[in-house]
Amino acid sequence: MPFHTYVQQHRDHFLQELSELLRFPSVSTDPAHAESVHRCAEWLAEHLSTLSPTSVELFPTPGHPVVYATWAGPPGTPTVLIYGHYDVQPPDPLDLWESRPFEPVIRNGRIYARGATDNKGQFFAHIKAIETVLHTHGQLPLTVKFLIEGEEEIGSLHLRPFIEQHRDLLACDAVLISDTAMYQDDLPTLCYGLRGLCYLEVTVRTAATDLHSGVFGGVVDNPIFVLSHILSRLRDGYGRVTIPGFYDHVLDPTPEERQRLAELPFDAEELRRHLGAPELFGEVGYSVLERRWLRPTLDINGIVGGFTGSGAKTVLPATASAKLSMRLVPNQRADDIAAKAEAAIRALAPPTAVVDVRALHGANPVLVPLDTPPMQAAARALEQTFGRPPVFVREGGSIPVVEWFTELLRVPTVLMGFGLETEGAHAPNEHFHVKNFLRAILASATFLHEYAHAAMQQ
Amino acid sequence: MPFHTYVQQHRDHFLQELSELLRFPSVSTDPAHAESVHRCAEWLAEHLSTLSPTSVELFPTPGHPVVYATWAGPPGTPTVLIYGHYDVQPPDPLDLWESRPFEPVIRNGRIYARGATDNKGQFFAHIKAIETVLHTHGQLPLTVKFLIEGEEEIGSLHLRPFIEQHRDLLACDAVLISDTAMYQDDLPTLCYGLRGLCYLEVTVRTAATDLHSGVFGGVVDNPIFVLSHILSRLRDGYGRVTIPGFYDHVLDPTPEERQRLAELPFDAEELRRHLGAPELFGEVGYSVLERRWLRPTLDINGIVGGFTGSGAKTVLPATASAKLSMRLVPNQRADDIAAKAEAAIRALAPPTAVVDVRALHGANPVLVPLDTPPMQAAARALEQTFGRPPVFVREGGSIPVVEWFTELLRVPTVLMGFGLETEGAHAPNEHFHVKNFLRAILASATFLHEYAHAAMQQ
Repeated sequence: MPFHTYVQQHRDHFLQELSELLRFPSVSTDPAHAESVHRCAEWLAEHLSTLSPTSVELFPTPGHPVVYATWAGPPGTPTVLIYGHYDVQPPDPLDLWESRPFEPVIRNGRIYARGATDNKGQFFAHIKAIETVLHTHGQLPLTVKFLIEGEEEIGSLHLRPFIEQHRDLLACDAVLISDTAMYQDDLPTLCYGLRGLCYLEVTVRTAATDLHSGVFGGVVDNPIFVLSHILSRLRDGYGRVTIPGFYDHVLDPTPEERQRLAELPFDAEELRRHLGAPELFGEVGYSVLERRWLRPTLDINGIVGGFTGSGAKTVLPATASAKLSMRLVPNQRADDIAAKAEAAIRALAPPTAVVDVRALHGANPVLVPLDTPPMQAAARALEQTFGRPPVFVREGGSIPVVEWFTELLRVPTVLMGFGLETEGAHAPNEHFHVKNFLRAILASATFLHEYAHAAMQQ
Repeated sequence: MPFHTYVQQHRDHFLQELSELLRFPSVSTDPAHAESVHRCAEWLAEHLSTLSPTSVELFPTPGHPVVYATWAGPPGTPTVLIYGHYDVQPPDPLDLWESRPFEPVIRNGRIYARGATDNKGQFFAHIKAIETVLHTHGQLPLTVKFLIEGEEEIGSLHLRPFIEQHRDLLACDAVLISDTAMYQDDLPTLCYGLRGLCYLEVTVRTAATDLHSGVFGGVVDNPIFVLSHILSRLRDGYGRVTIPGFYDHVLDPTPEERQRLAELPFDAEELRRHLGAPELFGEVGYSVLERRWLRPTLDINGIVGGFTGSGAKTVLPATASAKLSMRLVPNQRADDIAAKAEAAIRALAPPTAVVDVRALHGANPVLVPLDTPPMQAAARALEQTFGRPPVFVREGGSIPVVEWFTELLRVPTVLMGFGLETEGAHAPNEHFHVKNFLRAILASATFLHEYAHAAMQQ
């Protein structure tokens, strides 16, 4: 039976199973959801064990558990390690969701839920691809190892030591990850670069306790003023980050890459309208795509201080804090940038305030080569599934694990994503297109065969 | 029986009654507490009716009710209108309170509860003064009118129209208010000036919805950056407000007033230590007391945007907002400053953001003359109660009603406060010294007699 027949026959059942998976509020950053994260991992291990794996295991970590399963392929065939993450972003602001974030519903050919596209829908497609190959061909054409972690949204805190401790278990010839986006709907995409991340929290204190703004306004400094002062001076009028040394190791894009990017279909006005932005904004001197993929940025992710309820309270607050993060590009390093950012923030702190800077997490940027056998097999699998060859892009987001696989396992990583940037990852009303869920299953099954076939021909 | 004997005999009972009053969470700004605000007003009306008033009434307003009572004095005696407010500030941040804000407790000679000093403890002392005079002398020596409103902490929204509509009912020869602070503990104080207030809310929007900061960082502007940019540019490096025209109508202090302030006991280092501030901060060129009382200020009272939970969320938020307020001095006008502030904020808003400015409330600053009969009677009452003459000060806070009494009733206002600035008004662990509660009762009873006596001698 061809893959697509099996997938069509089991479409509804696959979606029911995905809905079960999406019902777990596996929010890794929130201690209140730790139990749900754990139950999600257990559900996955049980689900994988129904697909007759060689082994399946739940590895505890100091944080959330790692789900691992493997299927041994015929002797002499290569090994592919498929990675995904079952943890999700917090769903807030809840009031902007049109349906509840952990009660998946299908509307207009899309399945809505937190985690639908990032990343449950995408890695679950690979599990269904394994099922499809097993049920249509009786066995897998190569060895598959499946690693699903529960801490991606909080910087994959315990995965690097896990990989270091389990190099033999994870040994492979290629890594396959679907946690990136297609460049456009119906345009198959392979991603060869990711930005890194450096995430900090800054806290400002100007007094021991909140004060009456009438009585003490004009006597002690205001922590929100101090924080605004610091934050607003981390960026200049040209959209550049002003942290000293921030751009020291940034690789300039080559003329070839700029040309390749310029040839991709792109409509800035359509993007602006879609995002609902009065004007697009970014670093002067670079195109929108260059700003997203090739240039580092600094964003403030959250801020809070003083009275934030409804109405007016005439308080002079004692503290204010902000979370900020920088997206990094080759060859910036997260730890170097964290140190430079902290120094810059401390240099901006006035003597009227106690300023505390804490690094929350980091990831280095990555670039992967285009000419490896697994990348070429992925390109063929996408062409067979979509009827057109893929485009090659970079992405603005970060997947720290890609750098670790590269460094610790010394194999190429294929970033074959099926999400769309318009699907609300990290935002309200996250969803995943059902047609792309089904395509992902087909492309993954095809990839396993293409890669095994190419390896045998070598 | 002398006043002080009655007060000493009824000390514990007075404190029990005050505790009952403090138990109402009469937070006027929070719609969730509307019922408690109303019940507090009813409790007061019932309590006043036990003191055989000529009349007692609860006046509904479009917001919270006004409590009113009157006692007719002998013919030919003057009339004093005593004002207070039974609403309180929100108690948050709750986790900084050592005991629950609406469960009053007495520790170390202080009664702890939200509203203890601002303003329930202070106006309740006048009620107990009326009781003391009635029980020791059988009748009041002049006509007393008592007005207690429920919206002072939200700008006395409906009190101005109430005064306008009830000019005859409220007609009087002097207004007496205890909602200011003593300059120091044991130092009786009369206040002759208050700063005004102009309170605004600013909201910034840069996109229709929250976005993934990796995918869209570098493409649209960040609302927290925009808000920080705007806020940090409202003040210059000398602590001055940069809103164009802000200082146009500010009266410079006279050499005499600067001299009088300089002679008040003051220790800046002790204040700094008490507030827990690394350094004091304010407008260059003015002393700390001048900055508090004679100079206008701008403070940011609250800010919120993006992810504010624990941990890290890589969100590019769509909106951020801040509450800010300016303390005004003669002859600034709240509506003029609101218009100038809004224009300045709009001028700072970039085309990448939609910026909304909303005026929440305002009050004009006031100065009252020192040489009126009620002010002199108050000075004598304080001297008899404390054993030393009072100091004359201004205050940094705002009491909008003082301006309205001045304008609409055309009588002088006596600001005879018994709170201390260290008692946590608008902050956690608000309290009122029991000794000052008792002194306030004595001073108020003595004032009624001194003022009636002086009027009869004229």
